Amino acid sequence: MDVETTVISMERAALDRWCTGDPWGYTEICADEVTYFDPNLDGRLDGLEALRQLVAPLEGKLKIDHYEMVNPKVQVHGDVAVLSYNLVDQALAPDGTATTDAWNSTEVYRRQDGKWRIIHAHWSRPKSRE
Amino acid sequence: MDVETTVISMERAALDRWCTGDPWGYTEICADEVTYFDPNLDGRLDGLEALRQLVAPLEGKLKIDHYEMVNPKVQVHGDVAVLSYNLVDQALAPDGTATTDAWNSTEVYRRQDGKWRIIHAHWSRPKSRE
Repeated sequence: MDVETTVISMERAALDRWCTGDPWGYTEICADEVTYFDPNLDGRLDGLEALRQLVAPLEGKLKIDHYEMVNPKVQVHGDVAVLSYNLVDQALAPDGTATTDAWNSTEVYRRQDGKWRIIHAHWSRPKSRE
Repeated sequence: MDVETTVISMERAALDRWCTGDPWGYTEICADEVTYFDPNLDGRLDGLEALRQLVAPLEGKLKIDHYEMVNPKVQVHGDVAVLSYNLVDQALAPDGTATTDAWNSTEVYRRQDGKWRIIHAHWSRPKSRE
């Protein structure tokens, strides 16, 4: 499997678990050194343990019915692969009302001992969603 | 000069020019393959020529009196260096009123032929600035 396919597959597997209320599929593919930005933070979060603490309260609370990884691109240089894409997701309320959400996503993967792990992540909102 | 010092110095030099109304210091340190997110776009922008077109209208329009690169971190792996920091900037109106702004910044640099160039950038707003 080429690098592009590998990291996109890993990202999708983590998103699949995330959407069912399991945030640990994401932290499992992050390296100890991971650094992380998202729009709910005031600055960068450093390290896997801090990321685990951030997502722990989300366990069992996430319910996303459908997502689309739009326009993914992987820039590979040696043992680093920069994945960027737009995530569009949709949740259905019990009455069937759909809520859509959208994200800019950067995931920098690094291969160490044959395994790809995220060393930096940056999540933000595209203009239409701010 | 070590990699960390090199890329932070390059970033500061580009910011110094940006703050005086010159956006070209930034595009000059971007690679042809650069991919780019910012909160005024609805999705990713691909390639140096597209980035040049994006910033061209800003020439002579930018005036930032002071900026601070808060908590910069550089993760170096081979010929890739991931710089992340918070940018806090301040502009003074003619009446002396200060306007502050803040950003989450990711700049992925890659070394090619001995030169470091940005191959991916992601700019967004921290929570307090949304």
